[in-house]
Parts: sequence; structure tokens; C-alpha cells
Amino acid sequence: MSDSDSDSQEQLTVVLPDGSELEVTDGATVEDCAYEIGPGLGRDTVAGKLDGDLVAKEEPVYDGVDLEIVTDQSEEYLEVMRHSASHALAQAVCRHYDDVDLAIGPPTDEGFYYDFDDLEVDESDLADLEDEIEEILAEDHEIEREEVSIEEAEERLADQPYKLELLEEFADESDTVTFYSQGEWEDLCAGPHVDSTGEIGAVKLLEIAGAYWRGDEENPMQTRIYGTAFEDESDLEDFLERREEAKERDHRKIGSEMNLFSIQDVTGPGLPLYHPPGKTILTELADFVTELNEDTGYDYVETPHLFKTDLWQKSGHYENYADDMFVFELGDDEFGLKPMNCPGHATIFEDQSWSYRDLPVRYAEDGKVYRKEQRGELSGLSRVWAFTIDDGHLFVRPDQIEAEVEAIMDSIDEVLSTFDLEYEVALATRPDKSVGSDEIWERAESQLESVLESREMDYELEAGDGAFYGPKIDYAFEDAIGRSWDGPTVQLDFNMPERFDLSYVGEDNEEHRPVMIHRALYGSYERFFMMLIEHFEGNFPLWLAPEQIRVLPISDNNLEYAREVAAAFDDFRLEVDDSDRTLGRKIRAAHDDRVPYQIIVGDDEADDGTISVRDRFEDQEYDVEIDDFREHLEAERAEKRTEPDFLR
Amino acid sequence: MSDSDSDSQEQLTVVLPDGSELEVTDGATVEDCAYEIGPGLGRDTVAGKLDGDLVAKEEPVYDGVDLEIVTDQSEEYLEVMRHSASHALAQAVCRHYDDVDLAIGPPTDEGFYYDFDDLEVDESDLADLEDEIEEILAEDHEIEREEVSIEEAEERLADQPYKLELLEEFADESDTVTFYSQGEWEDLCAGPHVDSTGEIGAVKLLEIAGAYWRGDEENPMQTRIYGTAFEDESDLEDFLERREEAKERDHRKIGSEMNLFSIQDVTGPGLPLYHPPGKTILTELADFVTELNEDTGYDYVETPHLFKTDLWQKSGHYENYADDMFVFELGDDEFGLKPMNCPGHATIFEDQSWSYRDLPVRYAEDGKVYRKEQRGELSGLSRVWAFTIDDGHLFVRPDQIEAEVEAIMDSIDEVLSTFDLEYEVALATRPDKSVGSDEIWERAESQLESVLESREMDYELEAGDGAFYGPKIDYAFEDAIGRSWDGPTVQLDFNMPERFDLSYVGEDNEEHRPVMIHRALYGSYERFFMMLIEHFEGNFPLWLAPEQIRVLPISDNNLEYAREVAAAFDDFRLEVDDSDRTLGRKIRAAHDDRVPYQIIVGDDEADDGTISVRDRFEDQEYDVEIDDFREHLEAERAEKRTEPDFLR
Repeated sequence: MSDSDSDSQEQLTVVLPDGSELEVTDGATVEDCAYEIGPGLGRDTVAGKLDGDLVAKEEPVYDGVDLEIVTDQSEEYLEVMRHSASHALAQAVCRHYDDVDLAIGPPTDEGFYYDFDDLEVDESDLADLEDEIEEILAEDHEIEREEVSIEEAEERLADQPYKLELLEEFADESDTVTFYSQGEWEDLCAGPHVDSTGEIGAVKLLEIAGAYWRGDEENPMQTRIYGTAFEDESDLEDFLERREEAKERDHRKIGSEMNLFSIQDVTGPGLPLYHPPGKTILTELADFVTELNEDTGYDYVETPHLFKTDLWQKSGHYENYADDMFVFELGDDEFGLKPMNCPGHATIFEDQSWSYRDLPVRYAEDGKVYRKEQRGELSGLSRVWAFTIDDGHLFVRPDQIEAEVEAIMDSIDEVLSTFDLEYEVALATRPDKSVGSDEIWERAESQLESVLESREMDYELEAGDGAFYGPKIDYAFEDAIGRSWDGPTVQLDFNMPERFDLSYVGEDNEEHRPVMIHRALYGSYERFFMMLIEHFEGNFPLWLAPEQIRVLPISDNNLEYAREVAAAFDDFRLEVDDSDRTLGRKIRAAHDDRVPYQIIVGDDEADDGTISVRDRFEDQEYDVEIDDFREHLEAERAEKRTEPDFLR
Repeated sequence: MSDSDSDSQEQLTVVLPDGSELEVTDGATVEDCAYEIGPGLGRDTVAGKLDGDLVAKEEPVYDGVDLEIVTDQSEEYLEVMRHSASHALAQAVCRHYDDVDLAIGPPTDEGFYYDFDDLEVDESDLADLEDEIEEILAEDHEIEREEVSIEEAEERLADQPYKLELLEEFADESDTVTFYSQGEWEDLCAGPHVDSTGEIGAVKLLEIAGAYWRGDEENPMQTRIYGTAFEDESDLEDFLERREEAKERDHRKIGSEMNLFSIQDVTGPGLPLYHPPGKTILTELADFVTELNEDTGYDYVETPHLFKTDLWQKSGHYENYADDMFVFELGDDEFGLKPMNCPGHATIFEDQSWSYRDLPVRYAEDGKVYRKEQRGELSGLSRVWAFTIDDGHLFVRPDQIEAEVEAIMDSIDEVLSTFDLEYEVALATRPDKSVGSDEIWERAESQLESVLESREMDYELEAGDGAFYGPKIDYAFEDAIGRSWDGPTVQLDFNMPERFDLSYVGEDNEEHRPVMIHRALYGSYERFFMMLIEHFEGNFPLWLAPEQIRVLPISDNNLEYAREVAAAFDDFRLEVDDSDRTLGRKIRAAHDDRVPYQIIVGDDEADDGTISVRDRFEDQEYDVEIDDFREHLEAERAEKRTEPDFLR
């Protein structure tokens, strides 16, 4: 493309990340734009992002688009390379197995996968496939993109039923599709990819799983091979180490070891049963926020789990959320399990008349909600069908937003700091499509900003990322092994008060519309519990531990004294190990059961009226006065300290 | 019937209430049997009971039947007379309105009703109908029973579509049906009835309601007229007085006045929303039993509300209970909202292995259950679709039954005495159809008897009335206006442990089957809450009252002191009335809001640093020291006293 050509053609404007604009000729591709900016950038271009969507560098731009150039220095580069690694995997599979049906092979947050049908492999085959992938990388095939007509694509894919199914859908949108080829192998694929298989870094295959075609359990179960790829071996090693650590901490493994919960075939998927030790922890967690909520002026309410869908029509959830809801007919009505607690709370608010003096009204409920995730997506406590939110909804005057958000953030601080969780905060503001007047948005956003600034908090401004119904503050926190988790949120809502026609009588004797605030301190109990299990690796703080103390008599002779000692701690969750195991085995068992403290008593202790205290770090102190230990334990529990620190 | 006749015919044996046997000839009726016992009884016979079913005296008896003769001295007489009163109502309606379709008109616990279609009446018409009924009673028509063929019945009922529908069903069972006539009016009816309309005592029509034909909301809505009848005016007056009193105490009326709960069209029938004051009471109730359960060795668990119906097949509920369950399909599976908590608890127990030393295992859960009652049957909190049971399930060795039942009954005593509820107890033993060995039934029943006897409790023995899966102890308690309510139960269960193949390893190293005990202290929270509202007429004990104290400043000048006083009671649920109403009106409002105590403060109190205390009985004491009142309140709350007694 030269300047002289462009004069005779229509000009387009693209917007670069720094806000500056670039004029290019209609038909220009991402790569053309990069060359326009500079020849170096042009040569380094791997792919592009058009309005946030990752695309091949060969894609044409369009007028007004936000354009980002992706090079091997970009965050997105790993995603592109992993996509190419998934192709290398499929190529390796095709070399080793005949007549395999190919499905899809996208990159993921942690690597990539490829789904196959008519493929018989098990974990023992992965090493051979890895060797073959190494070979393909060493062969350094150029990865070539080709645009072909639907008709030609049909011919090329004649023996690939899943690809043909995909092709049928693409045909509705375009006359052509793209293929990517490397060596003898090619795939129907939109890309983008790196330039050659030699550019793919260190690859590791991770595991094999079953997956339904398109995630729908009505479809055939296929074979999914998971892998990952990094730019170099050392990044891969780091990842594998973190992955091992995460496996050790897996809440499903620890949940079973500690008898916290189970999910069983006979009772159904995504529907955990909490066993006594798990329920003990959940109750402690609930009591903690209940006390916090009561101290900060929340009134508890209780709403049904089942509602007529009339309510969901009124709230607008039916329109946007029905596919994720459990819904059934009954007589002339339709009923649905609640996916959210807010409409129930709005209904209670609506049932009374309010004066400006009554506001803010703050309702809280540990409310169970139901969301029909695909069964294939369900996993332990992290993805379930039914989970409990420590939900809170506030009905406030517009002038009260700042003070209320301030108070909510105080509570969030208290919760997260109690678990030693570091966090980051983002403020998401008004998107293009939104409800509510300019005045109320501006006032609300400036109140949120003012709270964040008065707290001297570093926060990311996510302009335009608010919900259509109001701006919000999102928390993300980091666990003990550096993983990031979605945390609490504070969301303003100008929409639901409209839909429920909520009002209060102002000082002016006129009807006014309150603002609703949605907030949760934990979010989902299930998610938070899962995260805590993995964060603490099952070694719960004293206040949460299902069994807080175990008393170990050295021999049967000390059993009576052991029971006396136990009685002195009767407001703690405590067991006496009255088995006939040796002391060494008793200590081992208590350690394996993740009991924070062991009290060991033998003849010496019985004679002196003292105890030996051993903690989960295997430190031990002899000749401890019972009252001293009690006093410490009471403080450790009351202050919710995260680690047993009597001996530290 | 004479002795000489009977020799040539087959003889039948009927069993009388005292256990003695009577020999009668085949074909003998209830009335014949009564004459056989004695001519006086024969003359007095109104109806009979065959194996517990009320029947006309003209019905023939059968071999081996348990027979009771009903006279005007029997408990059942009122039921028979009320049935006749419902006929008098229908006759009166037919005299006043043309072309009315008759449906059904049975007696009820409190009176009777008759359902009509194509009838336009309202409450203002009831007086005229009552006059007409009086007239019919005064006319003293003989009530005659006639047996007619199905064909003839069809002719007689040609213009009565609902009666024809009933007739069609009867035709499947018998070649003939019975009609009862009185004067110009007759009805298809199985009886029994009194001998003449003159025998019907005092009748009163109570109200008009809509009711679906056969209770099914798919059917037409008919007009139901409720009435009642007693042997004399004075019994009727007593009933109407109690009814007025019950209306004043109606939990729906008080629930709305006190903002305790609501049931709304948009959210659905039978699905209450608990507003803050109602939820406060529910939480106090829950905390009370939670503490009791924890003190008596229960472990809390949490089970889903939704289960695959596989579980209900395993438990047997699906077979017997599916019609009452909310069930829907999802993919290849069917799911149901739980109608009971026991299978979930059995599943948790089953998930581990147990030794005889681990038993008893006691699980508790405030578990919400769902039962699809007919919509027409739903009423306030007394009949709902979803209710929470303070459920407990114990898994015990057979030798532990006695001690565990003893402990459960201690807890029930504590609960019922806390609310000053008197109660009666019944022991229901093995029915004809049952599961479980003779040995386990005998052992279990003798343990239950032994508990009842060791507690020196009067109990009714309901022989054969146990569940098929085990014997049980049922409580019934009486509220403040003498109404009786079903109370807690303790049920042994030999069936579910079989179905779930539950086991523990005994001292003999063999597998043994535990016995399951189902028990609840309140039963349904909804039911118990409703009963408490009516029992206390909304005047809840201090520990339950949503607002425990209201501070009333005499004037604005005393507002600051009022707030100081309020701060001294900050662990109570307290409001300061800062309105500009007069003191008289403030006192009135606090009284209407059923606040147990008012603290009144004016200049004198502010000067002296004292308070005036007024209770809900409108007694008042001046110059009270704040600390004295505090001390009293703490004790009144901790001891859960039922009435504010600082001034008594």
C-alpha cells in the first residue's frame, strides 16, 4: 500500500491505545496498520486486537475501531503461542492415530486443550505425544494462513463431522473461512497463530479428561487432552511447581481428608452435602459476618428459594437470565429457583411505606441461589448449582451513598484482613449502554471516587466497565500461593428501584426513588470456603478449626487426667484420643487431622497438674499451667488469629 | 331377625369396643347388632363405625369387623348432625336460588360446608339462608335413606353434572347408591344422618369462600358456604366466642400489624417472606434449639434443597410421596426439591465407616422442606409449600434407644415449658403392616414404654398406630385459648437404615444395622411460629420480642437524655421515639406495637439520672435506677420468662 494508492480510496480512522488516531485506506489489515506506525512494529506483529477481540494480523480493520498490535512482547502473545501449541498437539495425535475426529482446540488461561473423538489414549501415551510435539517444533514448519471458499472447505473437511458442523455455522456469516496449515497438517481455524512451529516454546501435556461436544451433555463425550506452553523451560517449571502445590491444596482432596463435604452421584451434581466438620466452619464464617452486619445496622430477612417467575419478569432477570435458571411449570404458573436474592429483598422493601428519615434500610440474608451451570463445568465447591451468598441490599438516599459505601468497605477490610488476604480494588464506571440520569451517575461515581481517595487506596479505574444499572467497586484478592480470586463487590443499582417502583417520601413531602446497593463480604460461601481450604491448606485458624484441641494421654493410666483436662476446655471443640495407639502415632494422627493444638498428658503432668502443649508446627512446651494455656486460647480465638501462636 | 332364622344362615363374628365378640347372622346391619346387644341401644342407634369408618346404621357388618355403635351420646354424633346440617343448608339454597349445581357437603372438625356452582351469593345473604334453615329444622322432616340402582340415580341426577361425575365413580364399586331425602329435597349421599331435621341443633352460617371442585386448581372455582352446628345454642355461643378470640389472634392479622411476614401474589403462594421483625423471632427460636442441640451432642450438617430423584427412589419417598413433591426434568435426570431431610442425613452417615464406639451419631439441621399442597389448602404460615424443620436424626445401637429417647424428651420438656405449653403424649405401637423383626420391635417398644414410665408420664397407648417403619411418641399441646396443636414427635425407624444399607462394626467385629431416630423439637418453624403468634397474641416474651424496649422522651428537651439511656441498653433491641407526638400518643403507639417495656424520661428523670418504666400491662413505676432495670431485664431475657415481670 502506498500513499498514492490511498488517495483514490476511502479512508478509515483507527484509534490506537494511547488515544491517537491513525488514518488508513479501506481494506488495510492489522499488519498494514502496524507498518503504517513503523516498519519495526510491522515486522514484529504477531496478531492484533480489534475492539478487544484477538484476531489474525491478516484481518482488515474498520472505521472507528480500537486497535492494539500484538507482538511477542504483548501479554496476549502467550495466548497466541498456546493456540499454536494446541495445533502441534493435534498434528502429533494425527501422526500417531488414524481416523481421529477433530473437534476444537483453544488456548485457556493456563494453557490449551484439544478435543478429539474416536481417539483411545491414556495418560501413559502422553510422553510419546510430547516427543512427537518436540519433533514438530524442531521441524520448524511455517504456519500458513489460507482463505478458502465454503465449498472448498467442505471438500477438505469431508471426513471431519465436527468441523463440518462448525463450518455450517460459519457459512451463515461469511462466504469464506480460513485454514491454518503446518507441514502435512491443516485445520479449520480463525487464528491467530505464531509464524512457525519453531516459535512455540516449552510444551507439556498435563492430563486427559472427558468433555461433551460443545459442553452439552446431550452430545457425545469426547477425549480432551490438556497441555500448556511457555516461552521457556524455566517458566514452565515454575508453572508445574505451582500446579503441584495447588494440587496438594486442592479443596476436593482436603475436603475429603477432613470430612468437610461430599458431592455424591445419588444426590446429584453441583449440590454439596456439608458434613459436621465442614458445617462447623461454615457456621463460624456465618457467625462472623452476622455479627459484623448486626454491628453495622443490617436487619436480617428471609426469602423463599422458590418464586413465581412473575417476580423474575418484574426484576428483568427472566429476560436475561432464564437459561441459567431452574424453572418448572405448576398449574397455570411457572416457578423458578432464585438465581439472586435482590428481587426478594426489593419485594420486602416495597411492602412498606418509607420516609427519608427511615433510610438507609439495610437487609441481610445468607441466601441460597441456584444457577444452572453446564454439568461439565461443575467442580468441587468452586462451580456448583446452589450456593449461599452473604447477601446485603441497602436502600439509600442518593446523598447517603458515600457514607454507606465507606461502611461497607470497612467491613470488607475487616473480613479480608482477618484471613490475611492481600487485595486489589477496581472502580468500574458508566458504560455506553446504561440506565439512570446523568446527574445520578455523576453524583454516584464521584462519591465512590471520593471514598477510594479518602481511604488513600490505590485503585484501577475501569472506565466504562460498570454494570448497565450502576457503577461498582470490585475486589480481587491473592491467596497464600499467589493465585488471584474474585472477591467482594459493592454495586450501585439505579435500575431495580425503577422496576419495583420503590420510593420514599422526602423532606419535601414528595416521592423519591432510593438507590439500591448490592454488596457481599464473602460473596459465595462455597467459593470462599473453597478458597480458604486451599489458602490454609486445611490448617484452619483456631477459631475455624473443626477440632481445635486434641488431648493425648500417654498411656491408659493417664486417661482419667486427660478427661479432667478436657473438661477445663469444654467450650472448645476438643477430642480425647482414648485409642490404644502409641503416643507417637497419636501425635501423627492429630497432625494429619490438622488439629491446631495437642495437649499431651502423662504421669508427670498428672502429678503436677500441668499439661504439655504441642502445636501443628511440631513445637512443644512442657509444664504449662492449664490456666495460662486457656487464657491464650481464648485470646487467639477471639482475635481470630490465623496461626496457632502459643509457642511462637 | 330371630334366633330360629339365624340357625339356617351363616354366622359372622363382630368385635365390640370392650374386646368382646358378638355372633350375628350374615346380612345383619349395624342397627341389628345394636338391637342384639340390647333393645335400648338399638333404639338409640344413630350410626356405626366399622373398623373406624363412620357408616349409616343400615350398613351390613362383615366377619371380624371392629364395631362401634354411635348414639347421641357418642363423640361422633356431632359429626353426623353437622352432616345433616349441611343438607339443610343445601335445601335452603335450593329453595332460594334456581338451577344451582350441587357439589359436595361434608362435616368438618369445626362444622360443615357445602359447595355450589352457578350460585351468586355474598355474606349479606347468609342471614336469609339461616332463616330458611331454621324453617327447615322447624318443619322437622324425616330424613329418609333409600338405596337405588345406578340407572335410576342417573335419571334423578340428570341436571346435576357434579353429582353425575361422582356417580360414575361409585358405579365402578357398586350396583347401587344411596339417596337421603328430607321433605321436597334429596341428595346423593352415603350418610349417615340424624333421623329428622328437627334433631339438628343450633346452626350458624360462618362465611363464603371460593374452592376448586375436588381441590384441583385446574377445575372450576365453586362457591363454598361454611357453617357450623351444635346440639344447643349455648355450645354454639361458646364456639362463636372462641372463634372471635381466635380471629383476634389470627397470625395473618398480627403478622401484618407487626410486619412479621408477607405472602405476596408476585412471589407466589405458600412461600412466605420474613420481614426483619419476623426474622428476628425466627433467629431467636433457632438459636434456642441450636444451643439445646449443641449441649446434647448434636452435630450440625447442611444438605441441599434439590436432589436427584435417585435419592428419593432409594429412600422410598418417590414411591409414596412423588405427588407431593416439586419435581422437574433436567437432561437425562429428574430432580426434586426435598420433602424430608432424613435421606440427606442418611447419605452423610453412609459416607463414612463407623464403630459401635462412635454411636450414637446425632445430626441436626434447620432443613427447609417442600411439599406441594393444593393451593386452596394454603393458609398463612399454617399451610405452606416450603417450611423449615428443626430436624434431628440419630443413628443409634438398639441398646441406646432408651437413653437417647430420654434425652430427646428432656429437650422437648425444656422447649414446651419455656413457652408455658401444656401437653399430652401418646405412644403409637406396631401396626399390622410393618418392617423389622419381632425382636427389634419388642425391644424398641419396651424401651419407649420404660422411658414414659420412668418419667411418670400419663400417656395414651395408640396400639397399632405406629408408622410401618417403627413405633413413635407424639406430643400434642394446648395453646392459651385451649386449642390443641400437633407437637414434637420422636419416631424410631428400622426401614431407612435397611434402604441405605447403613451399618456399624460391633464389639464382635461384625456389621450391625443401626436404628434411626427422627425427632424435632418445634417441628415446623412456620407452624410453631404461627402458633406462638396466636398463643401470645403477638405479645411475645422479652427474649423473642422484635422490639424489646422503647424509650419515650416526654419532650424534645429530653431527647438527649433518652439517647443516653438507650445507650445503657445497647444489647437490647430498642428504639427511641423521637417523633413530635404527645407522650400519650407515644405510649399508645408503643402499646399497639406490642413492645414489652417502655422507658419514659422527662426532666425529673434527667435530673435524677433515673427512668420510669412502664410495661405492656400499663403498670408504671417511677424513679427506677437504670442498673436495677438492666439487671432485671438481663435475667428476664436469659430465663426466657414469658411475661414482662419487672413490675409484677
